[in-house]
Amino acid sequence: MQHSKNIAIVGSGLVGTLLAIQLKRSGHEVTVFDRRPDVRTVEFSGRSINLAMSNRGWKALREAGIEDEVRKLAIPLYQRAMHVNDKPAYFQKYGKDDEAIYSIPRGVLNRRMIDLAEKAGVHFRFEEKIWDVELSEGKLFTGESEKGEWKQYEFDLIFGADGAFSRIRHKMQRQSRFNYSQHFIDVGYKELNIPANEDGSHKLDKNSFHIWPRGKFMLIAMPNIDGSFTCTLFMPFEGENSFESINTEAKAQEFFQRFFPDINNEISNLMRDFFRNPTSALVTIKCFPWTYSDKVALVGDAAHAIVPFYGQGMNAGFEDITGLMELSEAYGNDWSTIFRQYEMYRKPNADAIAELSYRNFMEMSSKTADEKFLLRKKIESKFAEKYPKEWVPVYSRVTFSNKPYSEALHIGDQQAAIMDEVMKMKDIRDKWDSEEVEEKIHSLLKEERFQ
Amino acid sequence: MQHSKNIAIVGSGLVGTLLAIQLKRSGHEVTVFDRRPDVRTVEFSGRSINLAMSNRGWKALREAGIEDEVRKLAIPLYQRAMHVNDKPAYFQKYGKDDEAIYSIPRGVLNRRMIDLAEKAGVHFRFEEKIWDVELSEGKLFTGESEKGEWKQYEFDLIFGADGAFSRIRHKMQRQSRFNYSQHFIDVGYKELNIPANEDGSHKLDKNSFHIWPRGKFMLIAMPNIDGSFTCTLFMPFEGENSFESINTEAKAQEFFQRFFPDINNEISNLMRDFFRNPTSALVTIKCFPWTYSDKVALVGDAAHAIVPFYGQGMNAGFEDITGLMELSEAYGNDWSTIFRQYEMYRKPNADAIAELSYRNFMEMSSKTADEKFLLRKKIESKFAEKYPKEWVPVYSRVTFSNKPYSEALHIGDQQAAIMDEVMKMKDIRDKWDSEEVEEKIHSLLKEERFQ
Repeated sequence: MQHSKNIAIVGSGLVGTLLAIQLKRSGHEVTVFDRRPDVRTVEFSGRSINLAMSNRGWKALREAGIEDEVRKLAIPLYQRAMHVNDKPAYFQKYGKDDEAIYSIPRGVLNRRMIDLAEKAGVHFRFEEKIWDVELSEGKLFTGESEKGEWKQYEFDLIFGADGAFSRIRHKMQRQSRFNYSQHFIDVGYKELNIPANEDGSHKLDKNSFHIWPRGKFMLIAMPNIDGSFTCTLFMPFEGENSFESINTEAKAQEFFQRFFPDINNEISNLMRDFFRNPTSALVTIKCFPWTYSDKVALVGDAAHAIVPFYGQGMNAGFEDITGLMELSEAYGNDWSTIFRQYEMYRKPNADAIAELSYRNFMEMSSKTADEKFLLRKKIESKFAEKYPKEWVPVYSRVTFSNKPYSEALHIGDQQAAIMDEVMKMKDIRDKWDSEEVEEKIHSLLKEERFQ
Repeated sequence: MQHSKNIAIVGSGLVGTLLAIQLKRSGHEVTVFDRRPDVRTVEFSGRSINLAMSNRGWKALREAGIEDEVRKLAIPLYQRAMHVNDKPAYFQKYGKDDEAIYSIPRGVLNRRMIDLAEKAGVHFRFEEKIWDVELSEGKLFTGESEKGEWKQYEFDLIFGADGAFSRIRHKMQRQSRFNYSQHFIDVGYKELNIPANEDGSHKLDKNSFHIWPRGKFMLIAMPNIDGSFTCTLFMPFEGENSFESINTEAKAQEFFQRFFPDINNEISNLMRDFFRNPTSALVTIKCFPWTYSDKVALVGDAAHAIVPFYGQGMNAGFEDITGLMELSEAYGNDWSTIFRQYEMYRKPNADAIAELSYRNFMEMSSKTADEKFLLRKKIESKFAEKYPKEWVPVYSRVTFSNKPYSEALHIGDQQAAIMDEVMKMKDIRDKWDSEEVEEKIHSLLKEERFQ
């Protein structure tokens, strides 16, 4: 049984509202601050990538009692649809027959979760910016401007759910021995849109994650329940075919006609959106510690922002909440222990999914055209399909399991070492689907180093 | 010929004052800001490690015309004196006969350099803290407090020489696509002191760098011209034998008597200093870019703080100034090009010395007791001594050369790969000083991968 605490959550995004719902259900008083206006009252900015909810996300929502509400907003994607040049799309299943990731627009989900949090009794204070935090006292200072008058609040606990550029973390960062890194990749992204057909149906297969891979850049499209698709163009900031170089309508028209002729005409307001929507940057943020005494803790992107190429950012953030709630059940009012355990347990997993996401980016941008890489993937897929118990692919471990990310990374490294050996086999190109190769993998799997 | 610019330097430390002298000599107006009082008017804090000036540092001072002045403050160290338990010290030469690093107390050097800068016509504004910077406008804002009245200055150029926790970098860090990391190691340090004998002479050999290696912790002593030694105790923050665990006078007495019996009694005011002097943290800081347009540039620790285990922090900072001045001679008034070239050229070298310094820390804390590691070092030293042209050790490349740090790191990695092969030789323990081993090294050096 817990004593009711007076708790502040900074940030009304997905992770903040999920945490708010859970803490409220546990009997605490919860106030959520956000410097932005209520997302339910404004048009959502054209700078987001659709979410891909997978097992970890659903688990956290289920525990908060809101899974069914969110399911209504989601479309299951069972496969990738690869659009390679002029050929018809080919499909790659994500997992077993019923395994899917679920597409949801960020704005739609965020609005629904704020509704649900409000219904649960959470207080929201929108358009109230935090200028300073006294970590040891649990004090928050808000106000109109940095140099103006500030209002002071005092809480038992403060959670920083305020995203990659967290103000709460910013204050923690000034302590000695606080480790921190922010690393931007050279690729940015821009949101575009494919509207529904006139009858409300989708213009592409709605149960696929659509990808137009083009080497250094790519376009993706994820379905929305209103029949539209949210598209995201990932492209380098500088160089040939970059956000910098495509700086006129003529160049943009030519670029889309040349590289995306099959979808070019379906994207609505292409020129307007391309030049009006912001070009956003992608960053990996790591830090440690994540908590301060028994007063302050970071959750979600504030603690571990990752690049989106594994579709796990929100899932990882939601899993923080799963972890926190489990610990709070185990340790009751001992928030000092809850926070210590939380950061010790979650940090290696956050690092693992950061690494896996970054590797997916590197793989996409450098290897998808590499013949040897494709052969390697083909061998791996074939073996995994034939021996599903012996070889669970990393993608499935991350997406369709709730086991630790760090375990997925570790086993993935072992699988990579095995495939390195396999690729060294003589004439592997000719005999890639032979029994000999299968036996080789079986025997490597039995070696002590891979146990 | 350059147009005279109105230039601000933030930070009156070593790198800031050297840059001030150089820019003033080039005909610019230079104002140095520092939030602290004039270091000449206050006791220097007991938290610094003596400096080890080596080739790169001397070169930069020579170019600024102040080498001779600084030489007067320095004591050459030709060797390490290793104090291992109860045995007499054994000596390891740093390089060839005349090659030495030079010990100087930070406070003494800093005061002299401010004197020299003032003599050259540099303006100093002490106790004036920068609260904000407008990067694109070259504006600095100073004042008594963050929320109080601010004074505004405008400059043609601003240099951030304000150290590891640079305010100028802090502002640059808020830009999108600014990469940044701060990584603290688990070891901290504390300054201690060995006073001179009554006749002013040194209590230990004054031309040696004294080391008491003790596995996870170590004591070093570096001579000062007044006959004293500045000592530094490096030790983990937590765990057995740590700053945390040694928390009473009795425990401290016991610790020093047990581990440093030969020097224990020479350290003056040991108990007072141990408990009064701060325990300082050690951090590696990396960032990029280092400049903003043609307005702002970071130099020294503000751009690249490193751990002190290679004795190169100040030398690397001074080399930034060498680089900047060379570029300003080449490109005249084109500060945009000077800044681009500066960061492109210096960044890989700063990363290289950060890596080398961190590796030295890892080596010291984990490997110095490892028999195989010591054998490896013995083989390497012997070969280097016999074939000085074929094998210049990394230490010499870093310390007694002005070639790029990145080259030293690269060649060091090659040497390590060669030594990996050598250590795999059968019965290497028995035949380590045989001709066979020498020949093996010669033949490896000729392989294409090591060219």
